[in-house]
Amino acid sequence: MGGLEKVFMSEERQHFLDWFFYPRNIAVVGASRNPSRPNFYLFRNLIGLGFKGKVYPVNPNADEIQGIKVYPRLKDIEDEIDLVICAASAPITLDVIKDCVEKKVKGVVIVSGGFSEIGQEGVKSQDEIAHLLKESGIRATGPNTLGPINTSNNLAVSFHPINQLRPGKLAFVFQSGLYEPRLSWIFSDFHLGISKLIDLGNKMDIDETEVLEYLANDPDTETIAIHLENIKGDGRKFLRLLKETSRKKPVVILKSGRTPAGAKAAMSHTGAIIQGSDAVFDAVVRQSGVIRAQSLEEFFELAKAFEFLPPPNNNRIVVATGPGGEGVMAADFCQQSGLSLAELNPETLSKLKPIFPPWEIRGNPFDLGVCLEFHVSEPIFGMFLNSVVSDENVDCVAIQLLVSEWAPVEDFAELFSKAAEKGKPITAWLAGTSEKANNIIEKLEAKHIPVYTSAETAIKVLSALRKYKVMQEQKM
Amino acid sequence: MGGLEKVFMSEERQHFLDWFFYPRNIAVVGASRNPSRPNFYLFRNLIGLGFKGKVYPVNPNADEIQGIKVYPRLKDIEDEIDLVICAASAPITLDVIKDCVEKKVKGVVIVSGGFSEIGQEGVKSQDEIAHLLKESGIRATGPNTLGPINTSNNLAVSFHPINQLRPGKLAFVFQSGLYEPRLSWIFSDFHLGISKLIDLGNKMDIDETEVLEYLANDPDTETIAIHLENIKGDGRKFLRLLKETSRKKPVVILKSGRTPAGAKAAMSHTGAIIQGSDAVFDAVVRQSGVIRAQSLEEFFELAKAFEFLPPPNNNRIVVATGPGGEGVMAADFCQQSGLSLAELNPETLSKLKPIFPPWEIRGNPFDLGVCLEFHVSEPIFGMFLNSVVSDENVDCVAIQLLVSEWAPVEDFAELFSKAAEKGKPITAWLAGTSEKANNIIEKLEAKHIPVYTSAETAIKVLSALRKYKVMQEQKM
Repeated sequence: MGGLEKVFMSEERQHFLDWFFYPRNIAVVGASRNPSRPNFYLFRNLIGLGFKGKVYPVNPNADEIQGIKVYPRLKDIEDEIDLVICAASAPITLDVIKDCVEKKVKGVVIVSGGFSEIGQEGVKSQDEIAHLLKESGIRATGPNTLGPINTSNNLAVSFHPINQLRPGKLAFVFQSGLYEPRLSWIFSDFHLGISKLIDLGNKMDIDETEVLEYLANDPDTETIAIHLENIKGDGRKFLRLLKETSRKKPVVILKSGRTPAGAKAAMSHTGAIIQGSDAVFDAVVRQSGVIRAQSLEEFFELAKAFEFLPPPNNNRIVVATGPGGEGVMAADFCQQSGLSLAELNPETLSKLKPIFPPWEIRGNPFDLGVCLEFHVSEPIFGMFLNSVVSDENVDCVAIQLLVSEWAPVEDFAELFSKAAEKGKPITAWLAGTSEKANNIIEKLEAKHIPVYTSAETAIKVLSALRKYKVMQEQKM
Repeated sequence: MGGLEKVFMSEERQHFLDWFFYPRNIAVVGASRNPSRPNFYLFRNLIGLGFKGKVYPVNPNADEIQGIKVYPRLKDIEDEIDLVICAASAPITLDVIKDCVEKKVKGVVIVSGGFSEIGQEGVKSQDEIAHLLKESGIRATGPNTLGPINTSNNLAVSFHPINQLRPGKLAFVFQSGLYEPRLSWIFSDFHLGISKLIDLGNKMDIDETEVLEYLANDPDTETIAIHLENIKGDGRKFLRLLKETSRKKPVVILKSGRTPAGAKAAMSHTGAIIQGSDAVFDAVVRQSGVIRAQSLEEFFELAKAFEFLPPPNNNRIVVATGPGGEGVMAADFCQQSGLSLAELNPETLSKLKPIFPPWEIRGNPFDLGVCLEFHVSEPIFGMFLNSVVSDENVDCVAIQLLVSEWAPVEDFAELFSKAAEKGKPITAWLAGTSEKANNIIEKLEAKHIPVYTSAETAIKVLSALRKYKVMQEQKM
């Protein structure tokens, strides 16, 4: 059971997380009619994106929202309810949870903040809720959370309006809503497709170990990207699982709260208590074959690379730039990240002669800017790419795209995807922004050629892919 | 003499670089009529931007370009010529230089590649040209170069169409055209204003020491940003000058060719021979109080920060984010970069109470996302900013902007520039892209509030400003 067939839970329960990703219906407690309230979008996104199940808005102060009947309380709904999105304020959350228990729902997402992250009083209310749910066998994410997202059944719970979901083979796990203001951007402008996303919030109940285990066995997920502030419960078990999982699927991890200042901030953010030093965590994680991101931006960049590209078979890279000066910097980045500039076959260099200036080719990094000056009307990029990926001394390629008034019009998406058929990962970067550039990026990324904003990133991600492959081979 | 009065060189020669930045007229040898050739834009930009001097196109195969009379050769021009842009191909460059000598021009920009960067043969032709020019006292940039740019007289020599120049107090020095495809972007979308830009190319004649000395004394330049692949000639003199200059004006440096792979690439790019280890260079540069960028992106980011902002008086920062999870990461970045999270006055916290959720404020980093959920219609950002910059325990602020359907409409540009009047540097970051976001960024940057794409950058640049200030104080 996987993919679109599994749009809804079957009667026979598979895994408790299926209730979160494949609910037959969802009740949104606290759904709002007012588009200037975040709670409006919790409901609107489900309807707007076409969630393939029933959605019940619950709000004692409204009759209908967007033409759909509103229920004053959860227990007024006649149907059995699979998933409840509880977006009531902290003080009345306990009452909603009591209703959930009475209604025998299968899962709850506790959106509200004001629990363990605010100190002793919040911990007390959170414990009370946890106790109630545990007794009745109802599982929950949060408090202080959003999600889940499942692109296979158009399920997305978010405070921000989402115009489109983009399906892919990557699953995201977050400990907090830092992806939230970026959701639209991830799908629309960053062109990253995902299978599932889950946000754990204060981790009162469901934790990263359970989620990782689920995603490791999820047939729709080929890469897992996890953001964590702390590890809940049995750290060794989680790390063992990370190691096992990364043998099968790449795992990218972003851990914040690395410094004392960050750890203190985490405490008042999700109530997370960070134990042990970051250096120890780092060492263990790297031994597990897990790729660690240093910032949120790097996390997304790496996620895209692992989602789009196969790993290179060895570390020999070809770099081509517009202005030659970028090539010098790119060469620095290659060496710093453990990639070595490929020595091309003399035959390949001969093939390239027609696109080069009338002097001896000295290359890798190659200066395609000079080529363009001398051969303005020729398909430089196509010929170049095609030749280098056919060279057996080349394992991967990073190339700077030039968009100018005078560079020849080449169908980059067509050329790059043809070259990518050789199975060697190709990354690109493009300086600046323009409508023309955005158009090219969109087409290239639709063909799974990632286009970054800098040479550094285009090279760094290839190095990460290579490192993953090496670790995987060592484990065999 | 400075600023706009100095639109042209006075008869009394001031400095040989004035012929490059303030020529009375320019001859473009190799100017093209064909918009699909880069040489077209060398001429078109000067006309289109309204260079405040006369421009003579020179091309034996054209009668007129854009309605302007073309001269077959340099010597056919009746006037004295101050600056020649020589964009003829390498083999005929020597002839053009002979014409320059005959015509007694004041300066030459040798655009063509195919000289020292291609090896022995190229070195020979380059030496021949150097000898001729030296004999006649004509100074030159290049070969293998573009520029100069001077925003005070609308002078810009580039292969790429430029729609607008943006004046500012920052001067750029490059060793190669890596800024070239980004020029439009720098002015239009990155909103960075500059005073002057010069590109040194193969540094056959004019070198970084001469340029740095000139810019150190340039009244239009308050910050200097230098890209280098190697240091030509007397390295100790250059480093001494760097140290002296950075006492007066911040100097940001980007040095590529740091690794053996990069050094080799530099050799075949601008013919640069890199001597000495990068570690030694790095140590010396840092002792000089110079800020070193690690990548081209960081170079531009730092340039913007030093152009826009005053340095903070101490290292106590306030951070505010949309989702709290970004605050945890931001706290990590602060600690890693030597900034300390400010402990606010109890009075300030009381002032903030009305915008916070109904539980105890635990802050810095502050989670403005939660505030917005509870006070959807209030001017959260204005009240927050205003309160924290008035606190004497705060030296600088980094704040994440939230652009959403439901966040209150606040005039960020107005609020931020009012807060900036206290003299404490404020940086912002904004996740994602949208027309609404771009509009906000444009308005904020017009008021010199830099908006970056990540918390990491917004914090890192404040740390660099602080480090500059500390070094400056130590030197007093």
